[in-house]
Amino acid sequence: MKVNKRLVLRVIFLGGVGEIGKNMTALEFGDDIMVIDCGSTFPDEQMPGVDLVIPDPAYLIENRDRVRGIVLTHGHEDHIGALPFILKDLKVPVYGTKLTLAILDAKLREAKVTGDLRQVKPSSVIQLGKNFKAEFVNVGHSIAGSCALSVSTPLGIVFHTGDFKVDYTPICGEVIDLKRISKIGEEDVLLLLAESTNVERPGYTMSEATVRNSLNTIFSDNLDHRILVATFATNIHRIQQLIDLAIKYRRRIVFSGRSMINIAECATKVGELNYPKEMLVDIDQVSKYDDRELLIITTGSQGEPMSALSRMAMGEFNKIKLGYNDTVIISASPIPGNEKTVNNVINNIYRHGARVIYESLAEVHVSGHACREELKLIHQLLKPRFFIPVHGEHRHQKKHAELAVSLGMPPTSIVITDIGDVAEITTKTIEVGEKVPAGQLLVDGLGVGDVGSEVLSDRRHLSEEGLFVVALGIDNTLGTLQSMEVTTRGFVYMNETDEILSECKEIIKRKIAGMDLKSQDYGAIRSALKKEVKNYIFKKTKRNPMIVTVVVECGASC
Amino acid sequence: MKVNKRLVLRVIFLGGVGEIGKNMTALEFGDDIMVIDCGSTFPDEQMPGVDLVIPDPAYLIENRDRVRGIVLTHGHEDHIGALPFILKDLKVPVYGTKLTLAILDAKLREAKVTGDLRQVKPSSVIQLGKNFKAEFVNVGHSIAGSCALSVSTPLGIVFHTGDFKVDYTPICGEVIDLKRISKIGEEDVLLLLAESTNVERPGYTMSEATVRNSLNTIFSDNLDHRILVATFATNIHRIQQLIDLAIKYRRRIVFSGRSMINIAECATKVGELNYPKEMLVDIDQVSKYDDRELLIITTGSQGEPMSALSRMAMGEFNKIKLGYNDTVIISASPIPGNEKTVNNVINNIYRHGARVIYESLAEVHVSGHACREELKLIHQLLKPRFFIPVHGEHRHQKKHAELAVSLGMPPTSIVITDIGDVAEITTKTIEVGEKVPAGQLLVDGLGVGDVGSEVLSDRRHLSEEGLFVVALGIDNTLGTLQSMEVTTRGFVYMNETDEILSECKEIIKRKIAGMDLKSQDYGAIRSALKKEVKNYIFKKTKRNPMIVTVVVECGASC
Repeated sequence: MKVNKRLVLRVIFLGGVGEIGKNMTALEFGDDIMVIDCGSTFPDEQMPGVDLVIPDPAYLIENRDRVRGIVLTHGHEDHIGALPFILKDLKVPVYGTKLTLAILDAKLREAKVTGDLRQVKPSSVIQLGKNFKAEFVNVGHSIAGSCALSVSTPLGIVFHTGDFKVDYTPICGEVIDLKRISKIGEEDVLLLLAESTNVERPGYTMSEATVRNSLNTIFSDNLDHRILVATFATNIHRIQQLIDLAIKYRRRIVFSGRSMINIAECATKVGELNYPKEMLVDIDQVSKYDDRELLIITTGSQGEPMSALSRMAMGEFNKIKLGYNDTVIISASPIPGNEKTVNNVINNIYRHGARVIYESLAEVHVSGHACREELKLIHQLLKPRFFIPVHGEHRHQKKHAELAVSLGMPPTSIVITDIGDVAEITTKTIEVGEKVPAGQLLVDGLGVGDVGSEVLSDRRHLSEEGLFVVALGIDNTLGTLQSMEVTTRGFVYMNETDEILSECKEIIKRKIAGMDLKSQDYGAIRSALKKEVKNYIFKKTKRNPMIVTVVVECGASC
Repeated sequence: MKVNKRLVLRVIFLGGVGEIGKNMTALEFGDDIMVIDCGSTFPDEQMPGVDLVIPDPAYLIENRDRVRGIVLTHGHEDHIGALPFILKDLKVPVYGTKLTLAILDAKLREAKVTGDLRQVKPSSVIQLGKNFKAEFVNVGHSIAGSCALSVSTPLGIVFHTGDFKVDYTPICGEVIDLKRISKIGEEDVLLLLAESTNVERPGYTMSEATVRNSLNTIFSDNLDHRILVATFATNIHRIQQLIDLAIKYRRRIVFSGRSMINIAECATKVGELNYPKEMLVDIDQVSKYDDRELLIITTGSQGEPMSALSRMAMGEFNKIKLGYNDTVIISASPIPGNEKTVNNVINNIYRHGARVIYESLAEVHVSGHACREELKLIHQLLKPRFFIPVHGEHRHQKKHAELAVSLGMPPTSIVITDIGDVAEITTKTIEVGEKVPAGQLLVDGLGVGDVGSEVLSDRRHLSEEGLFVVALGIDNTLGTLQSMEVTTRGFVYMNETDEILSECKEIIKRKIAGMDLKSQDYGAIRSALKKEVKNYIFKKTKRNPMIVTVVVECGASC
């Protein structure tokens, strides 16, 4: 069915990877594009050496004159982390709540990038071009200042939940604005984009407040111990609860780890984190206090190798040495893929004699994402005509679609999309149209997008099989092999290396004897020798190291 | 306290890694050594390219005249996987039950290694040297033929649980021999070595039989679908249950994946797996049957990249293409560290339109390891004087020690050991003595133990930062640089590579101009240039690729 493109609302999924879902989404109608979130993800084990993965902004750059702004739902990395890169090329206003922008601002300063940041509050309404009017709607989540978005478009309302949970007893701030959501549901909701992370979990997510009881028990059971808590630096509410307990139990607070210190500073500045200033102790001063007087709040809840907690666990963190008088609380769940590193950290902390308390032993963490009953509530309040599940793995999106069908939505009103997909929506239909350029850019050192698949496959090859370098000195006038060097790195068979190297040289000499070296067709010479060496090594060792053959010309004519 | 070494029982922990605990343990008294299990583990992400990790047998080789035999508790890889390597150098009898030896025999044949395999039954007693008499005691576990060991020594009984659970309704075979264990407990139990894997889980592990109900429901809900089940190849009881359901629902059985086919063959041969022969269909013949007539039992429950299921999920398995009419059951839990790859496989199966059923959605798997109440049962029945927790991560061993204390054992009667540790036990004391040589040998291709830490760190370096090769043709008579080649692999900055390469050459030329090339001290020349290039590249890119500098001599005197 062909429709007038001008009357179609396009939802364009520009970013994200398997585990995260969609972290950069654009709405397009007529001449206007608005962008929702702009997140980064961490590289997986198939991307060795890569620092960060960001969405490819090609489509936005191509249409930069029509991009009216970027709207942020909250301040987590997977929603704002790509902005220091994207804003370099895309000079548009960025809208977000106080804490979100404070964290973003610190990031931009560090990257020396300027941005036109415009602060909003829950219930703020902003106009983006002629066609979009976005209202920020307060929701609960594991970071302060999280909002859903209700976007009025010429075809009806698009409601984007952002990341959310229903928490009736939040630590700070207001309860999720269910009244407003209910009111929006009375209007014409064209499309719901709702997160799917916890769709496999029945019931409701526990309130953040439930963690307080568990933590309080631990504090009261460990009065004489130094207490260390690892949690997400952005989990301001958790950190506020810890601070409240520190006040109650007369402990000083120490922030440990770069992102913990940075984000705590941001959150304190904008008033999302509250404590008497004199409670704060610099990490260099911990030795001046008794164990019972200290609460150390640290990064490393995911077992990140360079984090403060990992280094403490390895005994490599000078400022804090773990021992028998320490109680360490891991107040977080491992993100899928991090289980093993978290386990290693826990094992290593135990080796110092310290106690460790983690989620499988005590209720020291709750999720920030809505479970099934909460998702149902949102669907029922909004009664959208169309639905696209977002955020969560493919299987979660699939399960979320099934949940919507179980609530009475026709399957034809739901689409599941991939990165680069465009959902085309009229008042009567939803379908997936042609793809736009989208994908992942890999950030490595100072380079963005420079790591391509060839580089990654070379790196994997090198890491699994090691390296053989064959350097040939060829006299291009006489057409003779003058000399040769063979060397290896990361290759096994240490005991036999000498034998292998000298046999390699023999093989090369024999092979090269039959070649015309005057030809100067070094490409052909190199690849013939490479094949020969490769076959020999595989036969000898059942391994396929990368073989790099270099020809150095050294005849009289050089 | 010095005691007469001749009256000390030594328990020597020779193998295992963090996640597995101890997979090769020796008992030593007087002139006799007996070995319990001899397992392998998989490499972790710090060991790129490594195939397998086995315990270092140095201590056993050194004392080979005193080693009376290797006793196997069951046939899992982490208990028998190192034997094809260890038996090459250590020609001693190996004792195990029927299925254990059948699986081992197939492994040894493949590796072309001979072994003196001696079959035992539950309740068999074997004499090992003068000092040890080992009795096999039937237990439940996720593989048939699992046994605990009750070893009579001059100082009393050493009871090793092996891997076990208490399953009162096992699928095949006998219930765990609690009567015998209780009887042993009436004697003098000197030492308990008990597994610790599930010590953090309260209550009891569910019976294998409970899985049948869940699986039956899935079979009856998917009558018209092709059904595929991924599980551990060694989980013979699970496979028998699946076969029973195939018989009930008139489906043919297809085994898919090398280890599934091999182990099913072993288990069928020794009578642990039972079905009418005509039910078996070769995987090449699946197209001849309707979907509703097929049950495919496959490897890949851990998301292993080369497994049959992973390749199906990626659409790279020619023999089976997934589609809308498939129901895939993952009848296993991810082993810690495998969560992400398993998730990826599930997501990819969904993308083919197939249904996927996994543990978090339905009870399609139970653990093979004892939970807290089962561990307590064993402690209370045996009432050992001393206790060493084995099998499980360090934290599990610690928690298991706490559990023993909660049952009334004095903390001084328990030791937690590391690999290489020796527990020295008299009738009155237990303590950790001097270490013996022990550790991990890495198997890579045809080489065993050839991958050292330098090789691994080179591989990691190459994989994270890539490679720069600088080849210099030096005329050692004239003392001049005749020519030069610079090339890269796995290095970023594709767009700027030409610029970087030519700047590198300039830098080398400048540096080399001040050097005495006639000296032929190429080591010094290479390292000076390496440093120069390294600094330049880091400044330019904030990256530290591995730099390999090769000098090819090409003067007149060559």
